[in-house]
Amino acid sequence: MRQIKVGIIGISGYTGLELAKILLHHPVFKLSYIANTQGDSTLEQVHTMLDSLPLGNLPIHKANAQEALDCDVLFLALPHKSAMAMTQEIFTLSKAKNKPIKIIDLSADYRLSVENYEANYCTHTDKENLTNAIYGLVEYNRQSIQNATLVANPGCYPTATLLGLLPFVDYLQDSNPVFIDAKSGVSGAGKTLSENTHFSHINENLFAYSPLAHRHQIEIAEKCVTLGKKELDIHFVPHLSPITRGMLVSIFATLKTPLSTKETRGILDSIYGSESFVRVRETPVKMSSVIGSNFCDIFVACKNNGIFINTAIDNLLRGASSQAVVNANLMCGLDESLGIPQIPYGLF
Amino acid sequence: MRQIKVGIIGISGYTGLELAKILLHHPVFKLSYIANTQGDSTLEQVHTMLDSLPLGNLPIHKANAQEALDCDVLFLALPHKSAMAMTQEIFTLSKAKNKPIKIIDLSADYRLSVENYEANYCTHTDKENLTNAIYGLVEYNRQSIQNATLVANPGCYPTATLLGLLPFVDYLQDSNPVFIDAKSGVSGAGKTLSENTHFSHINENLFAYSPLAHRHQIEIAEKCVTLGKKELDIHFVPHLSPITRGMLVSIFATLKTPLSTKETRGILDSIYGSESFVRVRETPVKMSSVIGSNFCDIFVACKNNGIFINTAIDNLLRGASSQAVVNANLMCGLDESLGIPQIPYGLF
Amino acid sequence: MRQIKVGIIGISGYTGLELAKILLHHPVFKLSYIANTQGDSTLEQVHTMLDSLPLGNLPIHKANAQEALDCDVLFLALPHKSAMAMTQEIFTLSKAKNKPIKIIDLSADYRLSVENYEANYCTHTDKENLTNAIYGLVEYNRQSIQNATLVANPGCYPTATLLGLLPFVDYLQDSNPVFIDAKSGVSGAGKTLSENTHFSHINENLFAYSPLAHRHQIEIAEKCVTLGKKELDIHFVPHLSPITRGMLVSIFATLKTPLSTKETRGILDSIYGSESFVRVRETPVKMSSVIGSNFCDIFVACKNNGIFINTAIDNLLRGASSQAVVNANLMCGLDESLGIPQIPYGLF
Amino acid sequence: MRQIKVGIIGISGYTGLELAKILLHHPVFKLSYIANTQGDSTLEQVHTMLDSLPLGNLPIHKANAQEALDCDVLFLALPHKSAMAMTQEIFTLSKAKNKPIKIIDLSADYRLSVENYEANYCTHTDKENLTNAIYGLVEYNRQSIQNATLVANPGCYPTATLLGLLPFVDYLQDSNPVFIDAKSGVSGAGKTLSENTHFSHINENLFAYSPLAHRHQIEIAEKCVTLGKKELDIHFVPHLSPITRGMLVSIFATLKTPLSTKETRGILDSIYGSESFVRVRETPVKMSSVIGSNFCDIFVACKNNGIFINTAIDNLLRGASSQAVVNANLMCGLDESLGIPQIPYGLF
Repeated sequence: MRQIKVGIIGISGYTGLELAKILLHHPVFKLSYIANTQGDSTLEQVHTMLDSLPLGNLPIHKANAQEALDCDVLFLALPHKSAMAMTQEIFTLSKAKNKPIKIIDLSADYRLSVENYEANYCTHTDKENLTNAIYGLVEYNRQSIQNATLVANPGCYPTATLLGLLPFVDYLQDSNPVFIDAKSGVSGAGKTLSENTHFSHINENLFAYSPLAHRHQIEIAEKCVTLGKKELDIHFVPHLSPITRGMLVSIFATLKTPLSTKETRGILDSIYGSESFVRVRETPVKMSSVIGSNFCDIFVACKNNGIFINTAIDNLLRGASSQAVVNANLMCGLDESLGIPQIPYGLF
Repeated sequence: MRQIKVGIIGISGYTGLELAKILLHHPVFKLSYIANTQGDSTLEQVHTMLDSLPLGNLPIHKANAQEALDCDVLFLALPHKSAMAMTQEIFTLSKAKNKPIKIIDLSADYRLSVENYEANYCTHTDKENLTNAIYGLVEYNRQSIQNATLVANPGCYPTATLLGLLPFVDYLQDSNPVFIDAKSGVSGAGKTLSENTHFSHINENLFAYSPLAHRHQIEIAEKCVTLGKKELDIHFVPHLSPITRGMLVSIFATLKTPLSTKETRGILDSIYGSESFVRVRETPVKMSSVIGSNFCDIFVACKNNGIFINTAIDNLLRGASSQAVVNANLMCGLDESLGIPQIPYGLF
Repeated sequence: MRQIKVGIIGISGYTGLELAKILLHHPVFKLSYIANTQGDSTLEQVHTMLDSLPLGNLPIHKANAQEALDCDVLFLALPHKSAMAMTQEIFTLSKAKNKPIKIIDLSADYRLSVENYEANYCTHTDKENLTNAIYGLVEYNRQSIQNATLVANPGCYPTATLLGLLPFVDYLQDSNPVFIDAKSGVSGAGKTLSENTHFSHINENLFAYSPLAHRHQIEIAEKCVTLGKKELDIHFVPHLSPITRGMLVSIFATLKTPLSTKETRGILDSIYGSESFVRVRETPVKMSSVIGSNFCDIFVACKNNGIFINTAIDNLLRGASSQAVVNANLMCGLDESLGIPQIPYGLF
Repeated sequence: MRQIKVGIIGISGYTGLELAKILLHHPVFKLSYIANTQGDSTLEQVHTMLDSLPLGNLPIHKANAQEALDCDVLFLALPHKSAMAMTQEIFTLSKAKNKPIKIIDLSADYRLSVENYEANYCTHTDKENLTNAIYGLVEYNRQSIQNATLVANPGCYPTATLLGLLPFVDYLQDSNPVFIDAKSGVSGAGKTLSENTHFSHINENLFAYSPLAHRHQIEIAEKCVTLGKKELDIHFVPHLSPITRGMLVSIFATLKTPLSTKETRGILDSIYGSESFVRVRETPVKMSSVIGSNFCDIFVACKNNGIFINTAIDNLLRGASSQAVVNANLMCGLDESLGIPQIPYGLF
């Protein structure tokens, strides 16, 4: 089979690591360029668990647009702001040299409208590419992704929320708040040390953070409009939970009229029936059923005019790295499932 | 100081154990009778961590109403159904022998109206005592508890929910669902072995159970009516989380009109300002701040007409055993804080 | 590539599950028969996280030697005693029908000499096949395994211990005890519910069990003799630790004469230099570096005449299922690494 | 009862916090001075879980020897080096002003001989007070502690190790190494953020650190000589385990001649029979039995001439703060058990 040269800029963090793990065994993508801000080491020096693996001794470069351009596909696992600077530089060079390249950006830089971005992050310095960026929620944007050169990989919370919420937006009383109670594993907070992620603080603990004010709230709301054609008043409360990876989301909303279990099931089946990575479940979803895989599991229960939509994903995989590789597969005309992790780590 | 003889029936479980731990150091209550269904052992044989403690060698009796009647105060830490059988037997003997006794029942048997009880549990076989039972949510029933001979100790989820919800019932659009997303430590499932509480299943996992169908849903709804004078459509979703003890509750509801932070704070202060065991917090509550204590911490945030009420308790203490001892303190005319654990175990 | 039909008897437990996960993606082995004691369900019904996976709907049969014989290779993930009954039945049929089959038995039934087995387990009822069974510690028995029809897959503790200890047996003062302090994840205790594996008991806890009396002690001692040609007085203390999977082993022994770091390193390199699944580390080994893979990591430190050998494996993979598939690969003349998990789950 | 004014310098860390928790309810000691390096806050601002507790609003001062001298007893919960500087300053002032004060130092600064200290830490700048410092291992130094003005509170690992090892030193072949495999909860690494204590790194993980080179190794060896009159070759390997608090220690050594269970039991009983905070156990000790208390649990098993001694403590309590308060009790002529935590947090 032909090989496609791929690179990762931002290899040091958790999403960089998880991208590398997937790409090490991908049948078509060949990981040929990895970089971080310092360079001067190897994959197995930075991620010691990869010692002795094929490509463990792959050199880590100091990130450089020129060198990166040698790849066919690039994954950017950078903080927001750095991501758009690098993207802009690469696409500018790409044009100048007439060397095409596809980018999957895992930051927030190309996910939102300029207005929403600037109100919640910072000034956007690459509005041109922003215009062409496609939001990489595969189930809702598959065709556009196939034609994209720049995909904005969705945030972890928006992924888990939108996959549950979008099928039901037309059934909701849109004057009422939609409430989302989301629980993330600690890896979602990244590798940077912090008080909240110090073991003795978060172990045997559970707490909300940025309630009703997290930046993923606007991402969810915006995508309800663009993908679901519905303006909703999203109330989003994320939690840190004493688990390394995984994400569990509760969506609570008010229905226009009550729905039976059969009806909710029918709605989900009509949308996800032929999807490879969404599973409709008949009992509440469990993190353990999806951690280690690209699956999003969904369960729904109703009572009177209240609906409870319950989803689970692996925050680092479906919420970041494996979804990014699915996007890359599509952008390259490959089967979207190629090399994507399917088998959960768990025992339950 | 005078001594009051207290007993625990149902010493083998976690709430029995936690009651014993509190009572071992209580300045007035003297633990003089402990029982389970088998008898024939000692406190330290059943709960080996209590080896060498004062009263560690207290004999465990086979539960017997006649012997129990020797106590002034009895805690029943029994499964529902067994609790009402035992209560009825003891009160019958108590009357016959003219030997007064006070009972704090930690089961569900005396918490609900006959109708709600029978619709959710089983036939009620002690309706007479049910009539006189007082729901032991201290902050809302203090005076009645002081005069009670039978207190129904609230469920853990209802305790954490009602303390957050009741202050706001008058501000809610009551036609809209009230959504409760509650996370409990695994000890809430008790000592009985089960698939869900097997370490390899719930570790690194998080999942809902009995969504919109848990029996505490009706307890919450009923108490909104009896204590809050408000009929609400409660949608309750409990979760098991990979933590031994602790409970975190999110309450989501629709306000009639938006409330400012200052207003929500004022509402809470007016109700809890002089309470010893409720703390109004300015940041989201953490399990670690309350585990090991009788505290209930509360935080509130609003956005438009949506309100997020966030509470935390120790499910075994405020949600069961320490709240039971507060009730006993009140029933005996003691300072309600006497011997009640105040200092959280946590480091954060 | 040609396909080899493989089966798993004992699919319901954790090692059965982990075998299935590996085999679902194995390039040559085709999982065509799975069985447990009841039958009448499917892979995804028993292991719900495998829902929607290829082969998720594979039927689970009631274990039957006749049907099993249709496979080319069989993995037995059964309790000891059941394993030898099944093995005997299958090999008897195999001979009778002249249908060859290879078996990898994951129980203890074929690991020990008759004497050691009967002193520690029960009467051995299949001494004939025991004679021909090969102990499947790949690095020490590779050639015999290639020719075997029955491989006894090593115990998890013996695997992690022997890989660290065997290289050094000639350097030890054999009159002195060899001490082994081993820590296992809870999954090692299996799926059967027990007090020790109840979440509220083992979470935030750590304790030894069967100190100096665990049945793996004799397995380690016997293999020091048969594989290392050295009789040692093994003192083995296993621990349960609050982790789902993983195993960390400390081996402490007295050297005849002190060894430098360079010497210990040289010893390990000479033995494991060309091994695919043993990594010699320069810092203490971490569970997180091996969980999810077939790797055994080894680190050694010395002080005076004391040596500390430190190994880590995934108890369910290298300690059971992935080692079993390596054995099967060898028995079938395949590259031993074929389809074997190499990429650890961890982030550190 | 009379009140004794006590202070804590170094209130911000975990041992400072745990000291405060104990002292808040101590019947004689009155916490009247708390300090850290910045000052300018209150107890409940730094340790938010203490909000609303009695003394929650106690001001935190910038540490100052002059002000500290107002206390009768001082606990120093400072890093080594800072501790001896502060101690020296306070004792100098104390003499100058003829205002007596007693100090319990929780750092390593006064635990070792000058030679051992300087070989393992740094230059000792307060040799005068070092001469008079008493090593506060209560069971072995009770009388000296009662007369001391400066007590060096033992390290956590040495406490758990020495309580198990000292009773047996006369029975050991002293030419052979003594091996210690110790597992600590993560809180032992303190509040300072680090890679090893980042939740996503140590959760679901277990690893040794500083093997055969940790500074507590020399503390253990020195105290075997001073308290046990025996020179031993200590081989000490500490581990970080995914638990907030608790410590479990395995001591492995070679006996001169085998000992029966009855004999080991007799040895322990003769030494600890009348101790309040040492429990000799008949089954392997569990962290959960001691976490939250000042207990040290001990279990012993032998096989041939090998002995396994197994101890458990709460690293922050018996290994630091509660042992410090026992020392203070003794120094002040109080019952050593006064106000000392006895009731473990655990359920098993």
